[in-house]
Amino acid sequence: MIALLTDFGTRDYFVAEMKAVILSIDREAAIVDITHEIPPQDVRTGAFVLWRAYRWFPRGTIFVAVVDPGVGTSRVPILLRTRGYFFVGPDNGLLSLAAEEDGVEEAYRITAQLPSASSTFHGRDVFAFAAALLSKGVAPSYLGVRIADYVRLEKPGAVREGGSIRGQLIYVDRFGNIFTSIGEKIIKEIAEFGDKLCVNISGKIYRMRLLKSYGYAEAGEAILLINSEGFLEVAVNGGNAAERLGHRVGEPVEVYRC
Amino acid sequence: MIALLTDFGTRDYFVAEMKAVILSIDREAAIVDITHEIPPQDVRTGAFVLWRAYRWFPRGTIFVAVVDPGVGTSRVPILLRTRGYFFVGPDNGLLSLAAEEDGVEEAYRITAQLPSASSTFHGRDVFAFAAALLSKGVAPSYLGVRIADYVRLEKPGAVREGGSIRGQLIYVDRFGNIFTSIGEKIIKEIAEFGDKLCVNISGKIYRMRLLKSYGYAEAGEAILLINSEGFLEVAVNGGNAAERLGHRVGEPVEVYRC
Amino acid sequence: MIALLTDFGTRDYFVAEMKAVILSIDREAAIVDITHEIPPQDVRTGAFVLWRAYRWFPRGTIFVAVVDPGVGTSRVPILLRTRGYFFVGPDNGLLSLAAEEDGVEEAYRITAQLPSASSTFHGRDVFAFAAALLSKGVAPSYLGVRIADYVRLEKPGAVREGGSIRGQLIYVDRFGNIFTSIGEKIIKEIAEFGDKLCVNISGKIYRMRLLKSYGYAEAGEAILLINSEGFLEVAVNGGNAAERLGHRVGEPVEVYRC
Repeated sequence: MIALLTDFGTRDYFVAEMKAVILSIDREAAIVDITHEIPPQDVRTGAFVLWRAYRWFPRGTIFVAVVDPGVGTSRVPILLRTRGYFFVGPDNGLLSLAAEEDGVEEAYRITAQLPSASSTFHGRDVFAFAAALLSKGVAPSYLGVRIADYVRLEKPGAVREGGSIRGQLIYVDRFGNIFTSIGEKIIKEIAEFGDKLCVNISGKIYRMRLLKSYGYAEAGEAILLINSEGFLEVAVNGGNAAERLGHRVGEPVEVYRC
Repeated sequence: MIALLTDFGTRDYFVAEMKAVILSIDREAAIVDITHEIPPQDVRTGAFVLWRAYRWFPRGTIFVAVVDPGVGTSRVPILLRTRGYFFVGPDNGLLSLAAEEDGVEEAYRITAQLPSASSTFHGRDVFAFAAALLSKGVAPSYLGVRIADYVRLEKPGAVREGGSIRGQLIYVDRFGNIFTSIGEKIIKEIAEFGDKLCVNISGKIYRMRLLKSYGYAEAGEAILLINSEGFLEVAVNGGNAAERLGHRVGEPVEVYRC
Repeated sequence: MIALLTDFGTRDYFVAEMKAVILSIDREAAIVDITHEIPPQDVRTGAFVLWRAYRWFPRGTIFVAVVDPGVGTSRVPILLRTRGYFFVGPDNGLLSLAAEEDGVEEAYRITAQLPSASSTFHGRDVFAFAAALLSKGVAPSYLGVRIADYVRLEKPGAVREGGSIRGQLIYVDRFGNIFTSIGEKIIKEIAEFGDKLCVNISGKIYRMRLLKSYGYAEAGEAILLINSEGFLEVAVNGGNAAERLGHRVGEPVEVYRC
């Protein structure tokens, strides 16, 4: 099974050509799209989505991730073999949150490429090609050379200082729900469902209820949830929190009882 | 075969996680996307699209539909076994137009869920999980308990009073074509292809030709068609009828000879 | 394998119904989406994307392409058997760039259709149906009648006059990169990577570097590339060239040393 994550969108031929290369080599490959709507060149968002999604896939899945502003320059194409999976993509941190969590066992610089390889479309010419060969059972050592290190992104996290927890905004989903880097475990140290909490985002202070689900909020109420990924989330019931509150990924957030 | 319909969009990891859960349980499952672009929380539009699409799928297809504003509250996850299919989703009417038409034979409240089930993502934790088990041949009685009733939406329809037919606007497609709830059979009682008809939408009156296809209209002409789903449709040749005429789903419509 | 290209979008049930028809006839069919986001009724863009994508697919792939402003009129549904592939779609030029390049061996007017065929959705009722039967091994001669000719679009190209090359803008991708009809071979006759070139688009003159990849440009610099499809491309590093420079498909372009 090969799972794809890119910022290529679905309106051009980019993703189709990647799939066609894979299926030309391994006609039996089951290809699953994670998403192709990562914001263009937003490596951090790509890494976050891959990190959340990979864990649900069957062991042995080959992930091909391409958010690649440095394509065609000296940035290296890599292949990471982890305890349960393979990750293929550019060495810019995109693979790192997922691969590090699962546990990297071997890292390779990919040397395999299509004979007609271009300088600007490694998604097709390098990554899809290498993934298809992996899928056919070709060992990583035939596709590249071992490397000692690769680029890592910092894992989103939060710190508690007394009754206050500090983190940052890390993701906004299609519904406008704002994910913070504050995890379920740390927030439960200071609050329970039903509590009112103060939320300071970039100096703007809100008071919100921590609820178990959207459905318990009033229509239009801004609330806090532990979302399905285990993060503290700011949501507006039936509305778009990111638009209504005017916040973006990267802003600092502090949560405390008040 | 498992067919998915949601309002999750394709830019996040939601759909991918549903597919990953399914494929982790049933690696052989063929997954087909109906659409993930139902307007957020628009249960009625979701029900309409599922109703139109289900009939074309092979018998035995398992439909997983998730447009679920009440997730995590007391609304119940259900499984409907119909004459030809299985329908899995929230008990808010979403499944009802399709399932009722095919003929419901058994209804279940789903009790199965992933061990780590969240309160906000039943698409993954309940519905995808139950569908995958169904797909592996697990009987519905192992996935939930029989229930006597479930939420039903009213089926779109129209009434004739003399030479006039009343209905409502029920759907706008990507091209801006406006579907009415007026069916082919009833419109043919009062008109033939080539006739001019008056169309009163929310008090605004248009005079349009009833044509067999877009291609017979003048460029930019607003026309009436019997569309491929068998509904009377308002279309603009080469244009967007919904934008140009300024109408929306839910408005009343009356058609009569004039 | 069946590959789909349409302007139907993914928010309605159109594509799902096509897939359902295919899978109802050939449950083993592997269906790949090329794209469903061709701009509505833009036959030329559809033809371009199909032309670029088809070559990467395994031999024997059946392409179903539907961008079809003339549906339901006298325009004919066709099936082209080429040296390596099958192409199914409307006879409006959509298939021609790809099929002509691969080499057309037989052309058919399709007569097969679903018993309940509509006048407005040949994607489902004619093209998907014919493709599924082809996929099951039904010979083209059972699906239609031989025809001598079909509609052809002009292949994008460029002409050199001394040190100047003239062509046109033929495509804008998701990132805003502007493809010209000027190919790698002809541009290399007058320039090398690193050269500065003048680019005259509709009378607006730019001076840009011809670079090997986006990554070698300054942030925000407008540059020329040979893209992964072998065309000279105008790009802005980290930006959207089409928006920033304000150009569109169809405009004339001239490139010369200066």
